[in-house]
Order: sequence, then structure tokens, then C-alpha cells
Amino acid sequence: MLHVKIAGLGHYLPERIVTNADLEADYGLETGWIERVTGIKERRRATHETTVHMGAIAGQRALAAAGLAIDDVDLIVAAASGRQQAIPCTAAYLQRELGAPDGGSTCFDIDATCLSFLVALQSVAHLVAAGSYRTALIITSERTGYALNPNQPESAVLFGDAAAAAVIVRTPVNEASAVVWEQFATYSSGADLTTILGGGTLHHPNDPTTTPEMNTFAMNGSAIYKKAARISELFLDSFFVRTGWAREEIDAAVPHQASGHALEILARRYGFRREQLIINLPSRGNCIAASIPLALAEAVADGRIDRGNRVVLLGTGAGLTLGAIGVIF
Amino acid sequence: MLHVKIAGLGHYLPERIVTNADLEADYGLETGWIERVTGIKERRRATHETTVHMGAIAGQRALAAAGLAIDDVDLIVAAASGRQQAIPCTAAYLQRELGAPDGGSTCFDIDATCLSFLVALQSVAHLVAAGSYRTALIITSERTGYALNPNQPESAVLFGDAAAAAVIVRTPVNEASAVVWEQFATYSSGADLTTILGGGTLHHPNDPTTTPEMNTFAMNGSAIYKKAARISELFLDSFFVRTGWAREEIDAAVPHQASGHALEILARRYGFRREQLIINLPSRGNCIAASIPLALAEAVADGRIDRGNRVVLLGTGAGLTLGAIGVIF
Repeated sequence: MLHVKIAGLGHYLPERIVTNADLEADYGLETGWIERVTGIKERRRATHETTVHMGAIAGQRALAAAGLAIDDVDLIVAAASGRQQAIPCTAAYLQRELGAPDGGSTCFDIDATCLSFLVALQSVAHLVAAGSYRTALIITSERTGYALNPNQPESAVLFGDAAAAAVIVRTPVNEASAVVWEQFATYSSGADLTTILGGGTLHHPNDPTTTPEMNTFAMNGSAIYKKAARISELFLDSFFVRTGWAREEIDAAVPHQASGHALEILARRYGFRREQLIINLPSRGNCIAASIPLALAEAVADGRIDRGNRVVLLGTGAGLTLGAIGVIF
Repeated sequence: MLHVKIAGLGHYLPERIVTNADLEADYGLETGWIERVTGIKERRRATHETTVHMGAIAGQRALAAAGLAIDDVDLIVAAASGRQQAIPCTAAYLQRELGAPDGGSTCFDIDATCLSFLVALQSVAHLVAAGSYRTALIITSERTGYALNPNQPESAVLFGDAAAAAVIVRTPVNEASAVVWEQFATYSSGADLTTILGGGTLHHPNDPTTTPEMNTFAMNGSAIYKKAARISELFLDSFFVRTGWAREEIDAAVPHQASGHALEILARRYGFRREQLIINLPSRGNCIAASIPLALAEAVADGRIDRGNRVVLLGTGAGLTLGAIGVIF
């Protein structure tokens, strides 16, 4: 149990709304196919908004919600599947965009694809609990853009763009907020089920053998679904044993909004009640690593999650990685 | 003070040696220019060896040095400026290449460019000290390849490829090993001094406005040198105050091997004695994030660093970030 607190949350949604009708026209899909298959009605997509621009606004809003100023921040972690550019890290550009004092914070990036925010929250919670940093800002900003695969509409229609941020501090005396338990497991037998082959050393952008499709998202949805279903049950059972919580004692479960099927299984197979689940998939789509902090930020903003609530953040990401963190909010 | 120990180190060097004569011919440079200006005599460059291949061998060697097996590992962190591909994280592929048990470890990537290993060591040391993980493997594998900038020979000649890895465990009772202090600061006023503009959302490989040069390394060496010189003195003074160590009590300082000038200033301006400095720049070049763990691994292997020694790992990375970690080895 770590005595740290999510002191404030913020998010940013791109201005442009992309409807299913837009995408069904683009990809030549039957009207109604997207909502029927994915459960998504619309999603935002960035136009002029860069990864850093979206992230900085989410960060400012999280600081405002925490009642803290940018000068208080001594750690900035950019936690996302996507980065602004290869060098330097996105967090350094966030420091500059936020107007944070030069030299006043440590900046680095963490990547565990869709679970980047959860993995960052684990490390940051430990660093703040130990006193290495006093006020940490985790910023997750995802901008899909050219990474959408026009040859794979079933994945391209899923994704939305968004940024979300959280301020992490030590819990003040007499408050209950805590990180109760963090649990992850990577099953690399599934590493090739969700990929962008390019963007690294294996298929570098300047390598003449790199094709444009390698720089886009490829997913074997049904294989992921089967694999995740097989391994998630034991993982979640173990998670609840370690937290000491029963599933019915959870005030809210905030899942990664991978797809309608992935959310459905949480209720049908893993024992969550539908009213426990925080779901923004229909209006936001799958916002990659921003999905979990965005859904959390929206649920806190509209009062579905309150201080003292038992909240489980959980999901599946490329790798294939399972993750869950239990917090007393 | 964290009671964690670098239980074993390993490294891998690509087979191919690239001499200054090779590069002076390639770039049309005067004979002897590279050694005179950079202090580098030769460097390794990967051919068939991928990022993951190099990293996995370094990881196996680190485990062998620690007397541990891959089945013991419950955390794999890939800490580098370069990744194998955009999705999933490099650490997931390292789990698979190492033959680690499926689901037996958590995998994620950390990026702080040249300081990636140090930043990862900070987070991992806290996670292991707290008991979240028992045996962590930090793997840094850098393969420059197509990222070298043919229009900027003064940076292209600096870089070498290498991988290095460290096993982190809790310190056994009655042993002195510890992480004594970790300190970082990012000065994003210098973010644009060292860049690869491409490889992310701002100049995506599939964006028709992205040029090949954007996907290569660009550096304003003299501006970095001036800026780093101005801010490093206070940073190091503060670091030594926090460790409680005097500079002359250090058994070894393992700096990032940025360039001959950067190493020279450590002795001339920051008060390190030349015999304290672990330098492999002449034979290895600047191996980006692998430089520090590679120099440490080589120094431990040949007996220049022993158990119980006071060791400072330090450097400057794109961001611009300064970092230093003091360990009792």
C-alpha cells in the first residue's frame, strides 16, 4: 500500500468529431457496421493539435484540478504508445510547452502501448512514496494520424485521439487515498498480434525496404480476444486476492476501452457488475494509452468516482500485457 | 539509500569494427581528423544484429554474471533511445528472445535518450527495494543504422552500437551494495539542440512532408557543450552534497561517453581525477544510452570496479537532461 494520491486529473479532446458515417464512407463499409461490430458511435481525431499540444493542455487541467502550479512539478513522465519525435523524449517538450521551470523537473517517457499510463503510475507512485519526487505529472497523449491502417478498417475505425493527465503526490495525513496494489504480466507469445512494425531500428523510415503499411497499425483482433480471455481470469482472480477486495466491493472499474467485445467480457465473464464499469468507448473510441486516464478523468469530473472510492484501473495492451492497479481514490 | 544491488552486468558488441579510416573515406574527411577532434579510434556497428538480438545476449550475460536464471526475472525494462519497432515495446520482444516464461515478467520501455539506463535504474531500484519485483533486468541496446546523418559527419562518426544489461535485486543481508542517491534535471530550453525530428507523430514516416534527413540525428555540439558546462557544475555540487561523498572518495566515475570534449571537462572543470574516470570512448564511440552500462560492465569485468566501491554513474542526454546516480557497487 503506497500512500500516494491522484491529486488531480485533466484531459483534452481534439475539436474534430469523426462519425461512423464519415468512416463508413471512407472505407466503403455498410451503414451501421461500425456501431454494430465495435460499439463505437464517434471518436475525436486531431487536426492542428500535436501530441505535445494536447498533452500540455491535459497537464494544465490536471494541475488546476489539483490546485497546484506548474512550478510545483518536479517529475514529468510522458506515458504513451506514440511519441512526438524520436529524440528527445516527449516529456522534455511537455516541460517546455507547459512553461515549467528550466531544470526544475526530471523528464522521461514510458511505453507499454495501451498500458503505458498504468505502468507509469506504478513507477511514479513508488518514486513519490519514497520521496524522490514531490509532485509528478503523468501525461498520456495519443495522436494516431498516419498510423491508422487504411487496409485494415476494422482496426482503423476503433481509434480515437485524446490526451489525459494525472498529478501524483503523497497522500496528506488524515486522507485515505492510496495505491493499494499494482499487477502486470507480459505474454510475449502474443507480441505479434498487435504491431506497428516500423518506427524503430528493424524497419527504419529511411530503410528502402520499409513499406508504408509497416508504419501502420496491424491487429489480429480475434486471436487477441481469445488469448486475453484465456489468461485474464487467473490474472484478475490473483489481483483481487492481493488487494484483499471482493469484486462487489469495487466502486468503479475503469477498463482500457479496447473494443465493445473486450468491455462486454468484463461483465459477462469476469464478474464485474455493469454499473461498476466506466465506459466511454461509444463517444471516444479506443484512445490507446489515453483510454484509461481519460475515462477516469471524465468519471471523476462528472461525479461517478469520488474520494475514498475503491477503483480498479485495468486493461490489456500490445505485448501482450495485462495490467491492473487498485487505488483508493 | 535503497538496499538494492547490481547483481550482474553483461554486454554485447557487434562483430563489425568501423575504423576512422573507413569513415574518413566515406565522408571525405582529412586523415586523422576524427581522432584529433573526437578522441575516438574505432567503434562497432551492427550488421545482422538487431536491437533485440544484441539486447538479449547482453541480458543473458548479465544473468550469468549474477548467477541467476531467466526464470527468476519478473521485470524486463528496455531502456534506450532506440526501439525495435513502434508497437509493441522492445521489452516484450526481449522477453521472447530470452526464452523467459510467458506471463512471468512485466515488460515496458523507458526512454530518456542517452540517460535511459540511469532513469530506468532509478525507477527499477525503487520497485525492487519496495518488493514489487524481485529480479529486474534492465537492457539497453542501441543500433544506430539508418539514423546516422550523412550530412552531419561530425555527429555520424561519434556513434557506435552496443548493448548492455544489468540485473537488479535486493541487497542480501550483510552486504553493502546500495543505490545511495539519484538526481536528474531536464533543461528543455535545450530540447532542440539534439534531435531526431522524425519517428513520431510530428513527422510520421508516412507523412509526405517528412524528409529522410528528419529521420536522422541532428546535433548542435558546441551549443550543447556550452549549455551543459554552465549547468553541470551546480548540479554536481548538489549531487555530492546529497550523497555525502567528497569527489576524492569516489572509486570510479562512469560518465556517458558523449565525446572527448565532454569527458575532458570532467577532469579539467568538475574536479574528478583522471584515474577515477572509466573511459571507453576511444574503442567504443558514443553508444548513446548503452555507453554508461557498457563502460560499467567492462570496468567490472576487468577488475577496475569492485564490490563495495563508491561509483558515480553520470551524464548528459538530449532533453537536455543531466543525471547522476551514486551506488555502492
